[in-house]
Amino acid sequence: MNKTPAGPRFTKLTKSLAASVPFVGPETQERLRGRAFDARLGANESVFGPSAKVLGAIADASQHMWKYSDPESADLRDALGVHHGVAPENIVIGEGIDGLLGYLVRLLVEAGDTVVTSLGAYPTFNYHVTGYGGELITVPYRGDFEDPDALIAMANKAQPKLIYFANPDNPMGTVHSLNAVQKMIDEVPDGSLLILDEAYIECAPDGSSPAFDTDNPNVIRMRTFSKAYGMAGARVGYAIGHVDLIRAFDKVRNHFGIPKISQMAALAALNDQQYLSQVIAQINDAKRKITEIGAANGLTALTSATNFVTLDCGADGDYARRVVGALGELGVFVRMPFVPPHDRCIRVSAGTADDLALFAKVLPQALEMARV
Amino acid sequence: MNKTPAGPRFTKLTKSLAASVPFVGPETQERLRGRAFDARLGANESVFGPSAKVLGAIADASQHMWKYSDPESADLRDALGVHHGVAPENIVIGEGIDGLLGYLVRLLVEAGDTVVTSLGAYPTFNYHVTGYGGELITVPYRGDFEDPDALIAMANKAQPKLIYFANPDNPMGTVHSLNAVQKMIDEVPDGSLLILDEAYIECAPDGSSPAFDTDNPNVIRMRTFSKAYGMAGARVGYAIGHVDLIRAFDKVRNHFGIPKISQMAALAALNDQQYLSQVIAQINDAKRKITEIGAANGLTALTSATNFVTLDCGADGDYARRVVGALGELGVFVRMPFVPPHDRCIRVSAGTADDLALFAKVLPQALEMARV
Repeated sequence: MNKTPAGPRFTKLTKSLAASVPFVGPETQERLRGRAFDARLGANESVFGPSAKVLGAIADASQHMWKYSDPESADLRDALGVHHGVAPENIVIGEGIDGLLGYLVRLLVEAGDTVVTSLGAYPTFNYHVTGYGGELITVPYRGDFEDPDALIAMANKAQPKLIYFANPDNPMGTVHSLNAVQKMIDEVPDGSLLILDEAYIECAPDGSSPAFDTDNPNVIRMRTFSKAYGMAGARVGYAIGHVDLIRAFDKVRNHFGIPKISQMAALAALNDQQYLSQVIAQINDAKRKITEIGAANGLTALTSATNFVTLDCGADGDYARRVVGALGELGVFVRMPFVPPHDRCIRVSAGTADDLALFAKVLPQALEMARV
Repeated sequence: MNKTPAGPRFTKLTKSLAASVPFVGPETQERLRGRAFDARLGANESVFGPSAKVLGAIADASQHMWKYSDPESADLRDALGVHHGVAPENIVIGEGIDGLLGYLVRLLVEAGDTVVTSLGAYPTFNYHVTGYGGELITVPYRGDFEDPDALIAMANKAQPKLIYFANPDNPMGTVHSLNAVQKMIDEVPDGSLLILDEAYIECAPDGSSPAFDTDNPNVIRMRTFSKAYGMAGARVGYAIGHVDLIRAFDKVRNHFGIPKISQMAALAALNDQQYLSQVIAQINDAKRKITEIGAANGLTALTSATNFVTLDCGADGDYARRVVGALGELGVFVRMPFVPPHDRCIRVSAGTADDLALFAKVLPQALEMARV
């Protein structure tokens, strides 16, 4: 009788985890449907792409790709430090904000620890918390806004290791004022760390983001080149915080993990702020257009401080899910919030004129199909 | 009196870790010395670079970098499956072998678990094991070779979660025969997982690598585009194993972590096997030249199955460290093994004709300086 090998012994924790991906990629959907989407408006990427200077930097960097990248990302951190008025020692570069969230959770969270976030906020953060055995405590949004007061109140009660707060918010696109955010920062209970996820901050109205205070050990800020900078595929995010916290990432990160091309592309993107302003204008135009298209079809747009518009479909989650499905069948990739009552909405990224012409054309048909 | 905030609460484990990097990058050394190295022969990169087709693929991919990359890396996994004669479900792509080792250790190792490796083997693996609270048990090399029999004997004794074995080996560059490796695979105690790190396998003599057997849950193979394929800066590694083990990576990995450009570059590299053969020939020429340069200076070269040559400096670790330092001062970046008795050696990557001309020129001077 042959012995069947039992295979590797997973930890109790990882044995309990689902082999799940927080987001199904559009490529996966395209493989399932057998053809590509005609408009890619579901992942809040920037269809306007990166600066031409970024493409030039990539061509230069490709000549050096045989080399391991600088594990300190020194050039990029120096430039970000100048840009934000903080020291390079207060900045860590990661494989997107996703990568940084993973490292941060690993540093702080173990089995039994609690973490506070909003019900319906960024699922990849939840993926990391669960992945390290943490317990998620959620507070509801207040209408279509994350609720800083409720998050702080819950933090005072639960004494969590981490509090997650995105400003502007995804998936609703709403933003809080600088004063509201500063008040939240000031009220973080000692022993908790506030993650202020500012992935979309470049798209927000001026004055939505408090000044950096790297003396404060109770907050870490996260930014990315994936959104307004148009470089989602490069995977470059960064965190700004107290030097002791930033240095701790060196205990756990994949030191050589940021590709050389990505580092040099991000540096070029940062150095072309004129292009960024131009893109923000294009994003704002596109958001106006999406709002109009929605209105023409009886859908109300939420005011957006991001590079997408959340459209209220005016019914329940099942209806909105059918709208998303129908749009997909008609060649337009969009996504939607995960939980009620936000799942009455669909989420449409700022697109090119062609993208939005197609969206305008097929939306009436999609709504018709969804009505069943 | 102001309250000084205590800051975030790290886990007991991460509090105990050092904020260390397994390897100091040459860029860090260059910043310290105030000028660039003239020859970069210390990180076993491929100075010959990637195929011209890779550069073309990067230019194409850069047009799409505004998109998140395919989290399944489906095109690359399909192509690798065909190349190696395994199913895509048996392959996971990671941020270099470093990234995959981190995920694998996380899946299996928690506080108190043991892991077996060789004393002086890959330090980044050790970094991950320590980082997840595992306990490293080391066995000595047998001469300049890792010792499969000793590794298996220790595994039978310690019943570790993981056994690490590199073939060919780094830092010594030696290789075991297919038969020796197959015997080791067959003898892995049930409940232990053998990591067969084949980062340098493309440089090894034909027949150094056993056939893939994805029915075997007790072994996982790791490969990379960082060495012979000349793409260290792209950070693409892959692992091949049993479908249950490969699927488990989906529980913990950074799903969107492999940049679009890196995926497409790796695909182009894989599809240009003719270029790979050409590079292997160049590597072999360079290794011959390094051997000759060593011999002309009284240093004995170990037979190498990798893209570097380990040169025995004939004295102790302090002497070899002085040689490495002197070469650095003279503009040549090399590294050396970490532990005795291997630290009698220095490790020189296959270089261009210019690199090796400089190495030949400055080596006598460096040896002179090291003699003190």
